[in-house]
Amino acid sequence: MIAEKMRPLVENNSAIRAMFEEGKRLAAIYGPENVYDFSLGNPNVPAPEAVNRAITDIVAEEVSTMVHGYMSNAGFEDVRDAVAQSLNRRFGTQFHLENILMTVGAASGMNVILKTVLDPGDEVIVFAPYFMEYGAYVRNYDGVLVTVSPNTSSFQPNISELKEKITKRTKAVIINTPNNPTGVVYSPETLEQIAAVMKAKEEEYKTSIVLISDEPYRELAYDGVEVPYVTPFYHNTVVCYSYSKSLSLPGERIGYLVIPDELEDSKAVIAAATIANRVLGCVNAPSLMQRVIMRCIDEKVNVEAYDRNRNLLYNGLTGFGFECIRPEGAFYLFVKSPEADDRAFSEVCKKHRLLVVPGTSFACPGYVRISYCVSYEQIERSLPAFEAVAGEYGLS
Amino acid sequence: MIAEKMRPLVENNSAIRAMFEEGKRLAAIYGPENVYDFSLGNPNVPAPEAVNRAITDIVAEEVSTMVHGYMSNAGFEDVRDAVAQSLNRRFGTQFHLENILMTVGAASGMNVILKTVLDPGDEVIVFAPYFMEYGAYVRNYDGVLVTVSPNTSSFQPNISELKEKITKRTKAVIINTPNNPTGVVYSPETLEQIAAVMKAKEEEYKTSIVLISDEPYRELAYDGVEVPYVTPFYHNTVVCYSYSKSLSLPGERIGYLVIPDELEDSKAVIAAATIANRVLGCVNAPSLMQRVIMRCIDEKVNVEAYDRNRNLLYNGLTGFGFECIRPEGAFYLFVKSPEADDRAFSEVCKKHRLLVVPGTSFACPGYVRISYCVSYEQIERSLPAFEAVAGEYGLS
Repeated sequence: MIAEKMRPLVENNSAIRAMFEEGKRLAAIYGPENVYDFSLGNPNVPAPEAVNRAITDIVAEEVSTMVHGYMSNAGFEDVRDAVAQSLNRRFGTQFHLENILMTVGAASGMNVILKTVLDPGDEVIVFAPYFMEYGAYVRNYDGVLVTVSPNTSSFQPNISELKEKITKRTKAVIINTPNNPTGVVYSPETLEQIAAVMKAKEEEYKTSIVLISDEPYRELAYDGVEVPYVTPFYHNTVVCYSYSKSLSLPGERIGYLVIPDELEDSKAVIAAATIANRVLGCVNAPSLMQRVIMRCIDEKVNVEAYDRNRNLLYNGLTGFGFECIRPEGAFYLFVKSPEADDRAFSEVCKKHRLLVVPGTSFACPGYVRISYCVSYEQIERSLPAFEAVAGEYGLS
Repeated sequence: MIAEKMRPLVENNSAIRAMFEEGKRLAAIYGPENVYDFSLGNPNVPAPEAVNRAITDIVAEEVSTMVHGYMSNAGFEDVRDAVAQSLNRRFGTQFHLENILMTVGAASGMNVILKTVLDPGDEVIVFAPYFMEYGAYVRNYDGVLVTVSPNTSSFQPNISELKEKITKRTKAVIINTPNNPTGVVYSPETLEQIAAVMKAKEEEYKTSIVLISDEPYRELAYDGVEVPYVTPFYHNTVVCYSYSKSLSLPGERIGYLVIPDELEDSKAVIAAATIANRVLGCVNAPSLMQRVIMRCIDEKVNVEAYDRNRNLLYNGLTGFGFECIRPEGAFYLFVKSPEADDRAFSEVCKKHRLLVVPGTSFACPGYVRISYCVSYEQIERSLPAFEAVAGEYGLS
């Protein structure tokens, strides 16, 4: 009954499901408060108060057939204009409403832009470690995923390997900063280098290569680190944004694409992406949530709560002897496994009721991802378990 | 820059856009109240009061990180259970929550099930006249659309041609009842005949053929007509439902798939469809709207308002001599063009500031679609224009 292309996805999913079932099994034995689940990326910080206030005000004040009705497939014009103006204020860009396409979250935005530009056999480059769903998104349009191996010293991307791997068939390069799973923020130097390589390859091959910047974690940055805006670095950039983390609305599926005027054939790409949004079945981004964005354009979740979690967990783990780059953004630690086999290490963690994700799931063996979008108390309670794991491996 | 597969979609869209621009041009000249736009399927009846009350109550009463958070990709379990129980009460079915997958509207639900079952080259049968986006949905997964020609006497599907057109490569048959654009409701006899043909062909070819029932108009039926529930007629049925019309929430993108236990490999199909929902980028149906459905499971829009429109427009047009089957559902009249060329006829209508959609856009030349999801007053004001058009063609 099931399409051939779906089968590997179903098999892979069974592994994830098995991990989830194991968590439930442990919770049933030891009690849920004694199982420390660091495996998920589901924000635990609530949406700002202003969001729920906006929802209540909108249904009281705005016309029902408009709030809940169809609009242009690209989204409400006033919302798109508000997004463009907000980006211009913050990043000195020159966007206007036509550059903004409201989407069903960043994941849908990525599908929309990939459907818009990919012909079968086109190559899309990702930097390991990367969010595994990118592979599924690319294969949805019969693209070929090409992986650049990780640079485990800084987890900035491996530029020389990027240069080697761009071919005549390269249609896109995906970056994700702040990064899932490492928490690394790409520096301006990194973006300049990526842009320089891509421009040179476009000229060499007489092709167009799109830089797709997946930015659900843009607003989650710490220590005063600035997350550079990508479009000024490279002409053919498309930004995929989501309010899932910045406003803690992951279930609402609201985000946008930025398709700048500088992009080659910009007008045609915007028109095609709008159609792709429709024919993939999204039709438009959820209408009430678009209205909410309009009223909450400058709101942010309590980033300090994540920062406290980050410090507690980072200091705790490194204190026990674990090796980990200090993350500047997102809500993940990417910790070096004390043994080469990250799956074996995560099994040891599980014995101590710690659920973490093997780096193999991000094409980066030898590491595990630990999500700190959990309660501060969970981190506090879990530290003795991490210390015990460190003890098993004889870390100092 | 744009993928080959997107190009015909972009070209086709330019035609739709040109019609839309023409409407704006006419409105600028004659005033918007003097342009009678019957071209869109955007509900003008507001959502029931209970919907906005539910929204306000949910944000006041339920936990923010749950209301706006991730849940299983298939949707909240309590919502899926409520949908299943509501269907069971109404239609005597035996669904449970696992049979229900919450989706980003029916359009996304169709994409999800087509991605789940279609291999490249698989054939999908539709009955003309049909909603043109079906072609785009099928081609998204490299399926081949096969059209059964219209039965213009009753607009019930042409069963003998269905029998001829099912081949070894047929993977699905799409039906849409109440129908867009005809307003026809498929009778129990029609569904029995479709089921009998499909079962016989499954046995003949040793294949599995899915009957996809697209049901956004299910609750819009008039004259006490019952819209038969499809799953009892045929084992391999999948239902695509949307609240766009039943609760006037088209912009919110909320609906569901029903994948019954009777479907072959049901469990595997449910698992695969849930993954398809995720990897197509929807991830899950919008969470707040899922919570709203939970509280508004037995609510309906004011169907009487559409019924009044239907009677006014149907009686008016047939009184002027136009030929039209009396619609029993949805909110469209499918009117016979008084000249063979429906595009020429719709140009004549436009001269009288009446915007209608040529039947050619539904693979049924010689007819036009007139949407009556507009204000009663618009219909009243437009009648002299329709009478003038009738006069031009010398209708009695």
